Amino acid sequence: MGHEVVLLASHVSMFGMRARIALAEKGIEYEYKEEDLPNKSPLLLKMNPVHKKIPVLIHNGKPICESLIIVQYIDEVWTDKAPILPSDPYPRSQARFWADYVDKKIYDAGRKIWTTKGEEQEAAKKDFIECLKVLEGTLGDKPYFGGDTFGFVDIALIPFYSWFYAYETCGNFSVEAECPKLILWAKRCMKKGSVSKSLPDPHKVYDYLLQLKKRLGIE
Amino acid sequence: MGHEVVLLASHVSMFGMRARIALAEKGIEYEYKEEDLPNKSPLLLKMNPVHKKIPVLIHNGKPICESLIIVQYIDEVWTDKAPILPSDPYPRSQARFWADYVDKKIYDAGRKIWTTKGEEQEAAKKDFIECLKVLEGTLGDKPYFGGDTFGFVDIALIPFYSWFYAYETCGNFSVEAECPKLILWAKRCMKKGSVSKSLPDPHKVYDYLLQLKKRLGIE
Repeated sequence: MGHEVVLLASHVSMFGMRARIALAEKGIEYEYKEEDLPNKSPLLLKMNPVHKKIPVLIHNGKPICESLIIVQYIDEVWTDKAPILPSDPYPRSQARFWADYVDKKIYDAGRKIWTTKGEEQEAAKKDFIECLKVLEGTLGDKPYFGGDTFGFVDIALIPFYSWFYAYETCGNFSVEAECPKLILWAKRCMKKGSVSKSLPDPHKVYDYLLQLKKRLGIE
Repeated sequence: MGHEVVLLASHVSMFGMRARIALAEKGIEYEYKEEDLPNKSPLLLKMNPVHKKIPVLIHNGKPICESLIIVQYIDEVWTDKAPILPSDPYPRSQARFWADYVDKKIYDAGRKIWTTKGEEQEAAKKDFIECLKVLEGTLGDKPYFGGDTFGFVDIALIPFYSWFYAYETCGNFSVEAECPKLILWAKRCMKKGSVSKSLPDPHKVYDYLLQLKKRLGIE
């Protein structure tokens, strides 16, 4: 059976980037469709009527939604190269745990940095750094969260690296000063073509964020 | 290798129930340790230092946290009977999607019913029923969310059934009047020993909730 693969995403979405990295890791050809988030396409609304969110992977006409579920699906369908999840149940469970941690903590903590001010923003920055330090501790001295090879947790987290400049500029702080090992990890990931071609220019993310703040009425 | 299995949970926790159902489905013997949530045990804090939450499955000394990750782990280690996730990638992705939907929607919607009053409570009830109707629509005419067999989404959702009486009593409404097919599904699940022995008496859940409201200062 041939594979007809379409990805609905937005170039600044961390969640869309995850799907793009996984597709690139597996060397899958696909059609990319950029969604304009304030004006979602009829195709997106049809393919993800429950959450109406990107990314959506459409494989031979059938939709798969939610970024970490998409990455696992890609890993389970294209098994010939670049395994993303470990094969043993215990490390698999740990990879899922840390990817879930990224989902539950990093997005919200990062968002609070640019939606708040003053004391609230200071608390948001502190919380964001604390979460990153927990992740840095888990990484330890390994080259990747997956150990010697780039894997599930790496894919879950690295897209946020393209937002660090925007968070740092809004919050006037430096992730590198707090988490130098994590930045070394991020730079290591960026040497992979699958990552570098899936992440946007951090300055463009910042420009996007400035527009988004204006649209949301945040000074 | 022998299996030494310990479960840290609380009998009223929906998330703990999920692990108990999965263990029962697979016929796994384990030691159950009830946690007193206001006074978490040193073992819990050691085994889940990140979230400090139950349930935690401890398998041969190693912890697995987060209920849906535990259920997947159990399914991947004990492969000899009662498969929980479908084997094909597409239905697997859909099972993960709906279990994730239950996680993201039902707990919070249910909690709002007993933590709010007046208009806010009316909105919470409406939201809760809407989410259940989405799930009822997905169930369709199948006996289980997993199709002909009890599976991942069934395990994710059925524990909430033991809380319906508490939600209904706090909110003065009837789930059955709104979602009769979902209640038929729940009664079908309750005929399974793995489910009925893992779910607490709904009246005890309601008693627990009354105490919890008192502790939290909610009238």
